[in-house]
Amino acid sequence: MALVKYIDEAQASDRVKAVYQDIKATRGIETINFFWQALANDPSTLERTWASLKEIMAPDGALDPLTKELIYVAVSITNGCDYCTVSHLAAARKAGLSAEMRNELLAIVGMANETNRLASGYQVDVDPAFHQAVLDL
Amino acid sequence: MALVKYIDEAQASDRVKAVYQDIKATRGIETINFFWQALANDPSTLERTWASLKEIMAPDGALDPLTKELIYVAVSITNGCDYCTVSHLAAARKAGLSAEMRNELLAIVGMANETNRLASGYQVDVDPAFHQAVLDL
Amino acid sequence: MALVKYIDEAQASDRVKAVYQDIKATRGIETINFFWQALANDPSTLERTWASLKEIMAPDGALDPLTKELIYVAVSITNGCDYCTVSHLAAARKAGLSAEMRNELLAIVGMANETNRLASGYQVDVDPAFHQAVLDL
Amino acid sequence: MALVKYIDEAQASDRVKAVYQDIKATRGIETINFFWQALANDPSTLERTWASLKEIMAPDGALDPLTKELIYVAVSITNGCDYCTVSHLAAARKAGLSAEMRNELLAIVGMANETNRLASGYQVDVDPAFHQAVLDL
Amino acid sequence: MALVKYIDEAQASDRVKAVYQDIKATRGIETINFFWQALANDPSTLERTWASLKEIMAPDGALDPLTKELIYVAVSITNGCDYCTVSHLAAARKAGLSAEMRNELLAIVGMANETNRLASGYQVDVDPAFHQAVLDL
Amino acid sequence: MALVKYIDEAQASDRVKAVYQDIKATRGIETINFFWQALANDPSTLERTWASLKEIMAPDGALDPLTKELIYVAVSITNGCDYCTVSHLAAARKAGLSAEMRNELLAIVGMANETNRLASGYQVDVDPAFHQAVLDL
Repeated sequence: MALVKYIDEAQASDRVKAVYQDIKATRGIETINFFWQALANDPSTLERTWASLKEIMAPDGALDPLTKELIYVAVSITNGCDYCTVSHLAAARKAGLSAEMRNELLAIVGMANETNRLASGYQVDVDPAFHQAVLDL
Repeated sequence: MALVKYIDEAQASDRVKAVYQDIKATRGIETINFFWQALANDPSTLERTWASLKEIMAPDGALDPLTKELIYVAVSITNGCDYCTVSHLAAARKAGLSAEMRNELLAIVGMANETNRLASGYQVDVDPAFHQAVLDL
Repeated sequence: MALVKYIDEAQASDRVKAVYQDIKATRGIETINFFWQALANDPSTLERTWASLKEIMAPDGALDPLTKELIYVAVSITNGCDYCTVSHLAAARKAGLSAEMRNELLAIVGMANETNRLASGYQVDVDPAFHQAVLDL
Repeated sequence: MALVKYIDEAQASDRVKAVYQDIKATRGIETINFFWQALANDPSTLERTWASLKEIMAPDGALDPLTKELIYVAVSITNGCDYCTVSHLAAARKAGLSAEMRNELLAIVGMANETNRLASGYQVDVDPAFHQAVLDL
Repeated sequence: MALVKYIDEAQASDRVKAVYQDIKATRGIETINFFWQALANDPSTLERTWASLKEIMAPDGALDPLTKELIYVAVSITNGCDYCTVSHLAAARKAGLSAEMRNELLAIVGMANETNRLASGYQVDVDPAFHQAVLDL
Repeated sequence: MALVKYIDEAQASDRVKAVYQDIKATRGIETINFFWQALANDPSTLERTWASLKEIMAPDGALDPLTKELIYVAVSITNGCDYCTVSHLAAARKAGLSAEMRNELLAIVGMANETNRLASGYQVDVDPAFHQAVLDL
């Protein structure tokens, strides 16, 4: 149960309404989801977070929209954030996620968490060739 | 500094050598990286982990190889596993990662970690429409 | 739903009752919250945890009580512990937290989680001047 | 060892230079620390991150600058981000942190991590009174 | 509420049924718990995860079954995974866990999380003697 | 590199020396490891932490000393705390850890981190029978 009251469009100040309009126009949606309705209790965080998210998740980047949502879900599962997992899986579906893709995504997230701990448990050193390859990007 | 001695190919038992051969053949590489050389201290974990990774990261899945590596990196950064971050960034580069893609990847990982905490901090409820959309996959 | 039965004051052993009395006296409260009622299933952990918490959160330290609760909430959100987030936000409110402060707190927690991952993703080295400044404290 | 080359002021593009100037003016410092020099490889993330951080950490908020840095350090330790821990301890020192305050900060961070896990381990339910108190903020 | 439909034995494909039979035979249980019924939406992950778990948690290892479950619970609490905490506490109970043992387990998990953060907060260096002792295993 | 100066026995105050003596007597060791030498900068945290650890890790509990150290290592790897992983592996070795046990420990820690994320990713509901079994402990 949320720790703040949700602020829907009818109750929103003009400042909040402007963000809501932009969210709806950008995403082609009719209703504002709970995340933004919660953030609306803090208009400056609402504005800043939406501006950042809009820029980062823009469809014209080097990564396509579905890939971006998969990355978002991977982080959310690893952090154990249920809201974020569900909402970004829903966004991924809108961007083309199939059940097969979701299954692979979850399998990779599970596996990565396993090998992360094996690498930490044995305290494996970074291979110099890997470091160089990344530095040369 | 690793907590076990690395087992290179010259020192490896036949059981370990068989895994090393398969890693090299599957990935088209010449040298075995430190992660597997550490796991070789426990041949059954080496066999099991490689078999799982080979299956999950296979190139013929619903997700392409680069996307799979991006997901792997996203988890690794979120867990703060340096070895895993560098080694999977290197793998991602081999699969086509550009500097622009890496920058977007890191921006999304950062942003997802931010909004994960905002959602947790306000304890935002899952929108029923999102839950339904995911369940219908 | 808790994994142990809550032990309220009527059911408590003398050993547990003594801790409950001290909690109520120290905090000026009338009822014992669920956390302590759960820990009461393990009286030595109850005693030890309360003694540590009482010492650390004492009002006469170098940090004032509200600041201490803000730190507690920041950790709890980052760990995704809902109980701890709500209970320490409630304690912070008692110590003077306003809605504006809560909003800033959550914005900082979100931002810190974002830049933490950016620093880990790029594996930024510690600036020697920062290390020296901390060492000189 | 960082995964990107640091971009110092001499090498910076005009776009990056403008951010560097604002960082130096806002913070009253002479040199740009490694975090920003790493982010400069991705100018849009540099701009966005600095703009957000500048807004969130502004000295005229409901929380004072030292408290803000303490919250930042608490998150960074909990995430195990060494760079962030050291750099924000250094910032906290500049804002007035004493050794006594640092010791209390670390004691609280440790204790919060302990009780977070106890609450999760026993799966303690949120006390309705706490939830109400937070909702009434 | 799960994000996939549970697949019980009546609905299961032959491939899934074979795994269910092996789970029931290996564990001496009559019903398949929700975790496997969820994974059954992805038969290859179901097969792979069960095969790994069966191998790792086998009763004839160097660690006894109860100790293995305690380790599993410690990780699950630290990750804040409620499902995993409850299900592996239940498994631990079947393997001989008493209330006293559970209390000690939770106390250690709490304490380890506390000292982990103190070590990170002070950035304590590894004692060479500890490193050597581990390397000599 | 640590953020405080290590305080060895020669430099220690009487208050710190008393803790050091108790650590050496309790553990049968000759030298104080870096963790305590760092905490000694904050004598009250040193005293409190040692008192708690001594009580929790006492050899006469329901769990034996080796099992306790295994739990400690499992948490430390999951948190990515290198100091804690190495120091408690060293302590586990002193309590009887073999290389086979370490390998199994790490395999379980890896696997638990994998299935934790699968359970979170699919948001699996707790089986009522599991909850009841734990509640009946």
